[in-house]
Amino acid sequence: MALGTSMIIRLQMDKKQVTFGEVAGAIGDGGGDVVAIDVIHASPEHTIRDLTVNLPEKMRDAVLQAVEALPGVKVVNVSDRTFLAHLGGKIEIMAKSPVKNREDLSHVYTPGVAKVCMAIHEDPQKAFTLTIKRNTIAVVSDGTAVLGLGDIGPRAAMPVMEGKAMLFKQFAGVDAFPICLDTKDTEEIIRTVKLIAPAFGGINLEDIGSPRCFEIERRLTEELDIPVFHDDQHGTAVVVLAGLLNALSIVGKKLEDAKIVVLGIGAAGSACVKMLLSAGARNLIAVDRCGALHKAEKYDNETWDWIADNCNPNGETGQLEHVIAGADVFIGVSRPNLLTLDHIKSMAPDPIVFAMANPDPEIDPELAEEHVRVMATGRSDFPNQINNVLCFPGMFRGALDCRASVINEEMKVAAAQAIASVVEDDELNEQYIIPSVFNDKVVDRIRDAVVKAALRTGVARRTPPEFR
Amino acid sequence: MALGTSMIIRLQMDKKQVTFGEVAGAIGDGGGDVVAIDVIHASPEHTIRDLTVNLPEKMRDAVLQAVEALPGVKVVNVSDRTFLAHLGGKIEIMAKSPVKNREDLSHVYTPGVAKVCMAIHEDPQKAFTLTIKRNTIAVVSDGTAVLGLGDIGPRAAMPVMEGKAMLFKQFAGVDAFPICLDTKDTEEIIRTVKLIAPAFGGINLEDIGSPRCFEIERRLTEELDIPVFHDDQHGTAVVVLAGLLNALSIVGKKLEDAKIVVLGIGAAGSACVKMLLSAGARNLIAVDRCGALHKAEKYDNETWDWIADNCNPNGETGQLEHVIAGADVFIGVSRPNLLTLDHIKSMAPDPIVFAMANPDPEIDPELAEEHVRVMATGRSDFPNQINNVLCFPGMFRGALDCRASVINEEMKVAAAQAIASVVEDDELNEQYIIPSVFNDKVVDRIRDAVVKAALRTGVARRTPPEFR
Repeated sequence: MALGTSMIIRLQMDKKQVTFGEVAGAIGDGGGDVVAIDVIHASPEHTIRDLTVNLPEKMRDAVLQAVEALPGVKVVNVSDRTFLAHLGGKIEIMAKSPVKNREDLSHVYTPGVAKVCMAIHEDPQKAFTLTIKRNTIAVVSDGTAVLGLGDIGPRAAMPVMEGKAMLFKQFAGVDAFPICLDTKDTEEIIRTVKLIAPAFGGINLEDIGSPRCFEIERRLTEELDIPVFHDDQHGTAVVVLAGLLNALSIVGKKLEDAKIVVLGIGAAGSACVKMLLSAGARNLIAVDRCGALHKAEKYDNETWDWIADNCNPNGETGQLEHVIAGADVFIGVSRPNLLTLDHIKSMAPDPIVFAMANPDPEIDPELAEEHVRVMATGRSDFPNQINNVLCFPGMFRGALDCRASVINEEMKVAAAQAIASVVEDDELNEQYIIPSVFNDKVVDRIRDAVVKAALRTGVARRTPPEFR
Repeated sequence: MALGTSMIIRLQMDKKQVTFGEVAGAIGDGGGDVVAIDVIHASPEHTIRDLTVNLPEKMRDAVLQAVEALPGVKVVNVSDRTFLAHLGGKIEIMAKSPVKNREDLSHVYTPGVAKVCMAIHEDPQKAFTLTIKRNTIAVVSDGTAVLGLGDIGPRAAMPVMEGKAMLFKQFAGVDAFPICLDTKDTEEIIRTVKLIAPAFGGINLEDIGSPRCFEIERRLTEELDIPVFHDDQHGTAVVVLAGLLNALSIVGKKLEDAKIVVLGIGAAGSACVKMLLSAGARNLIAVDRCGALHKAEKYDNETWDWIADNCNPNGETGQLEHVIAGADVFIGVSRPNLLTLDHIKSMAPDPIVFAMANPDPEIDPELAEEHVRVMATGRSDFPNQINNVLCFPGMFRGALDCRASVINEEMKVAAAQAIASVVEDDELNEQYIIPSVFNDKVVDRIRDAVVKAALRTGVARRTPPEFR
């Protein structure tokens, strides 16, 4: 499936020199499809029209050149649909009720609001019922690890955070506001999030570079009484576990028995390792540039030391090519093209390969296809996309509904099992181990599972009516 | 006009012991009016009903007691309409367009969003067109000077800031988000606002205690490239000037010639003094507990020193009772009951009195009425309410539309003149010097005046199409 795009081309056409049919013909020859036309201005000599054109991304420049080459045609402006969708930002803040007259004003503002303020002053927990804290989270980033783009800064990170806020609302009814911080200092980020926390019922950390993200999440979890969730770590880990549970079910293996190799022990990789251990995995080997992490070694990285102590029970050493032998599962959150066909051929029968490097997987899925039993990637143009969007809306829906003080490992494992459960037994196959983000069962299942896990582990401060 | 309220009473009624007529009778006898009834549950023995009752605030307890005293009636719960309006908060965050399918997702989130991020990374000014920065401001408070309630903390301040966000959207289409800070430290407040500024096109400071508010506003104005406006100071000052311009017009006096006494030189009072000077006032005397501020004295307060140097050209000294003699205008932003009838009687003919102390004015308006020509207060139950809501929506609408880097004195004076202009010459009278906040001309007039002033003074970074 080629990446398609659409663009809006504003053309000035000289009526004597060119017909619309010629323009449409040139666009069609280039692989474009005119799907809408608006006449903006017409005079006896000229017309100005906006043409909406769908076409493969890579044909864009060629089509524009072909149109411009026509006699009597001037391209006034080209707007890309993606840019148009961003004009003025993608979210807005709405009043829940209109303020039509003085009486409305007296309820939502002075003087009526004073008694609501005093009720919260007397009992701060009432902030959870009488303010937006009940349903609002902050999406916090420092803009240092945005998508695959790296450190592009807080202003440039905003479109991602706004997009995330859209998805929170659309999929789970969660109000999310983007907070992009103009600092990369760990202590300053922690302090700032704590200072702005009164308005919020949860904190979604996003696209914050490693290793800073670990300290920030740990400290905020300890020092705030609302859930803090670094999506790049735990969102990925939850969805990986969900997919893996279903993949193992297809090949008839158990998580407890499977030999699992995780490649790339950064933020997402570390979270995957911990998540898999929490879910019951035992023979798990974490591999980074230095090879397999193992107990005999000391690392200048707390997380690696912890992983070395808690994984790799057989003390395997060496690079990927050594430890991948006999593995049932490969999970890559590293870099493109680190996994070879020889690696896969050395794995146990029915190999499961999750190759999630961005933008290109650890191995070309088309190359790997005939040698693996189940394959998943981070890409939407192959089956089995491991996509964080599956997790974060339902996770926070559940956490907010039960007023959880934290999001703990039990809640994450429960979310993964809930996602896995959306694919019914009679639907499950090698090409379908994980539901679509548009499957409307996903959020409800996660939400219920997360609430139950929070109640069971004692971190819920409210029992939703249907759980009473 | 007595302060009315409405409440919802949930009653369980034993059918054998009491009829609905008896309940309604008891409410009516207490001065309440049943305006809606919902039957929540009915069994052969009992009914549970929600009664919506309008009544004067002070009758509330008596009515409830009368209802509870009836045999067979149990009051299950009482909800006040104001509290109901606050359940779950008063604002929400909405996506501007739905995300219905994978193509929508690819435009507003990955992979499409990446090119928008990179466009901003290459040209940070594009944040003003491609993110919510174009239309979004932060309403920032530390919760230390909330309404007349004082230092009630950031959580308890939230309902006011949410209310303000509602009014920004309702009146001017401005997206406003409440940021309530869990600190009272001046430097920490400044630093935090700077760190979260990337998302915002303006900062509305609100309910921050004096003198901290001066330093915070000054420093943020210097160190940020977006407008910063402390509403408690400048919003009040703008609306005072608006009302005063019209009041002076009624009595046929000029601002330049009038002797004006301002009582209470805190945050709002200082701003009123500066605003009046900017608008042309000359014979202006600022009075606080220490009496009239004058050049010969030194004060341990920078603002007071500045005011002493720039006001009181005749070097008048002494308490209010001395300097009020012969004054044309009294402006009070101090405490209740500091102005006496004797003071007013010593003023020049046609005295103008703005008594805006909260919650009770410097003099009882009913007492003053027959001795003043024009009277204004901060209260909605007397004519001529000086209400900040008249200013802030239009002020930020204008500042955002022309992408102003600051809100300067010229823009504030222009806003005041715009508000004054909404009251037409043939409408103007002693009881109507200032328009209602629901007058839909207010915001448009302010917006246009503010944009023009910003363009004229060179602080606009964009010329809206209709000004080109």
